[in-house]
Amino acid sequence: ASDHGMQTVTLIPGDGIGPEISTAVMRIFEAAQVPIQWDERNVTAIQGPGGNWMIPPNTKESMDRNKIGLKGPLKTPVAAGHPSMNLLLRKTFDLYANVRPCMSIEGYKTPYTDVDLVTIRENTEGEYSGIEHVIVDGVVQSIKLITEDASERIAKYAFEYAVNNQRSSVTAVHKANIMRMSDGLFLRKCREAAENYKDIKFTEMYLDTVCLNMVQDPTQFDVLVMPNLYGDILSDLCAGLIGGLGVTPSGNIGTNGVAIFESVHGTAPDIAGADLANPTALLLSAVMMLRHMGLHAHAQRIQTACFNTIQDKRVLTKDLGGNAKCSEFTAAICERVAIMV
Amino acid sequence: ASDHGMQTVTLIPGDGIGPEISTAVMRIFEAAQVPIQWDERNVTAIQGPGGNWMIPPNTKESMDRNKIGLKGPLKTPVAAGHPSMNLLLRKTFDLYANVRPCMSIEGYKTPYTDVDLVTIRENTEGEYSGIEHVIVDGVVQSIKLITEDASERIAKYAFEYAVNNQRSSVTAVHKANIMRMSDGLFLRKCREAAENYKDIKFTEMYLDTVCLNMVQDPTQFDVLVMPNLYGDILSDLCAGLIGGLGVTPSGNIGTNGVAIFESVHGTAPDIAGADLANPTALLLSAVMMLRHMGLHAHAQRIQTACFNTIQDKRVLTKDLGGNAKCSEFTAAICERVAIMV
Ligand SMILES: CC(C)[C@H](C(=O)O)[C@@H](O)C(=O)O
Ligand SMILES: CC(C)[C@H](C(=O)O)[C@@H](O)C(=O)O
Repeated sequence: ASDHGMQTVTLIPGDGIGPEISTAVMRIFEAAQVPIQWDERNVTAIQGPGGNWMIPPNTKESMDRNKIGLKGPLKTPVAAGHPSMNLLLRKTFDLYANVRPCMSIEGYKTPYTDVDLVTIRENTEGEYSGIEHVIVDGVVQSIKLITEDASERIAKYAFEYAVNNQRSSVTAVHKANIMRMSDGLFLRKCREAAENYKDIKFTEMYLDTVCLNMVQDPTQFDVLVMPNLYGDILSDLCAGLIGGLGVTPSGNIGTNGVAIFESVHGTAPDIAGADLANPTALLLSAVMMLRHMGLHAHAQRIQTACFNTIQDKRVLTKDLGGNAKCSEFTAAICERVAIMV
Repeated sequence: ASDHGMQTVTLIPGDGIGPEISTAVMRIFEAAQVPIQWDERNVTAIQGPGGNWMIPPNTKESMDRNKIGLKGPLKTPVAAGHPSMNLLLRKTFDLYANVRPCMSIEGYKTPYTDVDLVTIRENTEGEYSGIEHVIVDGVVQSIKLITEDASERIAKYAFEYAVNNQRSSVTAVHKANIMRMSDGLFLRKCREAAENYKDIKFTEMYLDTVCLNMVQDPTQFDVLVMPNLYGDILSDLCAGLIGGLGVTPSGNIGTNGVAIFESVHGTAPDIAGADLANPTALLLSAVMMLRHMGLHAHAQRIQTACFNTIQDKRVLTKDLGGNAKCSEFTAAICERVAIMV
């Protein structure tokens, strides 16, 4: 769907501060003259005739048409049995790769500097299978599911990502010393994939060792690939190294170009509507989206405008150490980006 | 078994640098006049008549008699099917609580200061159940087993530990948003235990959130309790914050006073026998052991002598930033502790 060379993207503003930070991104895209138009949708959970949970049909149609989505935070479901909409979205569109680049922002003081790594998380199975049973009273089992297909797919994705993003190494993160069959299968598929990418250095490391080494010196890591739960943990750990979820982008990648980019912080209900939110994580997710769409020059300009605004320190939201409102921080980025186009 | 008021402890020196660092601990205990004698044993894997792996019978007898063990590093099994002896020891003696205090050492420069927390890890089940199956070709499941009994036992242990060690809060670490039944059961047992310890503050936190918060400010944490795998990850992460596995002690606690204290670093084959190893982790594990045995004054003196030697910076092993041999570092601690008794 194009209109004067425009591409359409499904926008899911989300809950809490979601609408504010989505507006911020839209304003910055406008100032940057990005050839994108938005198709705004929501993802309130809907229960189908069989009782199964699903996303609203018109949101599904929008994504099926546009293939690319940008999503703000969604509130955590409170009712038991009600699924996480984040997980449901990943499942609905088979978004098998969760990609989180983690890069130190110059001028933004955090415990670590020069971090520049990417976690690539298998996003469809593992500990997130949702299969659990009570065996007998007081004895519960949860099933971690690892398949050859999903492992092969994510391993290959990690190496392709490394090649396409001028990365030099891939580390497979596992506990195959404990889960010999499941993590063993995952690891084997990573080793096999490595065979086809001789220019990328391949290493394997236990998850616990990665965590220990990560906090001692994160600069030793480049691309890391791992099963679902390990990715959940490591991506948050890495976000913590460079300033938290307020400044880290995320992309959920599927097949045939389908992808949803999202900020992974919460809905921050305490400041929702007060024009105090920090739109950086959603904006950097939108930058990832532009790269995914091949709009590299636009991506670079917006990223530079964002980083320069942070580095400049004059107009910052509260969480970044300033006093500016969300709209003021947004305007500062707009101003910078407008003179670049 | 006592001889002139002496208590006997089973000593498992282990592989690689194990014998050197064990000798270091024995020398320091002698200088400190600790009323302990050692019963030295090994834990090479033995295969029983039915093909099951076990620890050598005389080592088992020694532990059954003495109840308390001190253990150096064991080499990772290379043969497939051969179990980790560390895990086999935990299983054989039902050592259900893995306790790892993590405390910044004054004068030893690390990315963080003022860390003072304890991870308490359920040590018998969870992802370490060892139950795995191939469902169909290319589809593997590993079973995470959570029981009411083990969850209740570890939750209670965490609160008892907090009370007995002047700690003020316990945080239950979980992913009950994903593993609703298994982690849900674990969490419920923690909540129930909390009811009986009204003076200890109880909080719950997702594992990913703990990791993120931990690297941003570890001083916010006190006692943390969690299922097996999460403990494996978090304890290594925390060790990384304060200098790594070379300086962090560990205890595996069972029922009826049975316990094995161990350094959790590797066997360091590259420097084994060269008198270059750092005995700190094993020594601090031995200090934990003394506290467990009620020998508090001895524990305190040895810990002080060790910390003062590190702070003094004149005699340090290579990994601590010095040039001293293991024996020289040991002698420096002996000298300090001897004048305290
Ligand atoms: C919201 C939650 C279900 C999710 C997860 O556990 O995957 C989140 O932590 C994430 O990392 O995207
Ligand atoms: C040696 C290994 C089996 C063990 C584990 O995974 O528990 C180790 O990492 C630990 O933390 O004690």
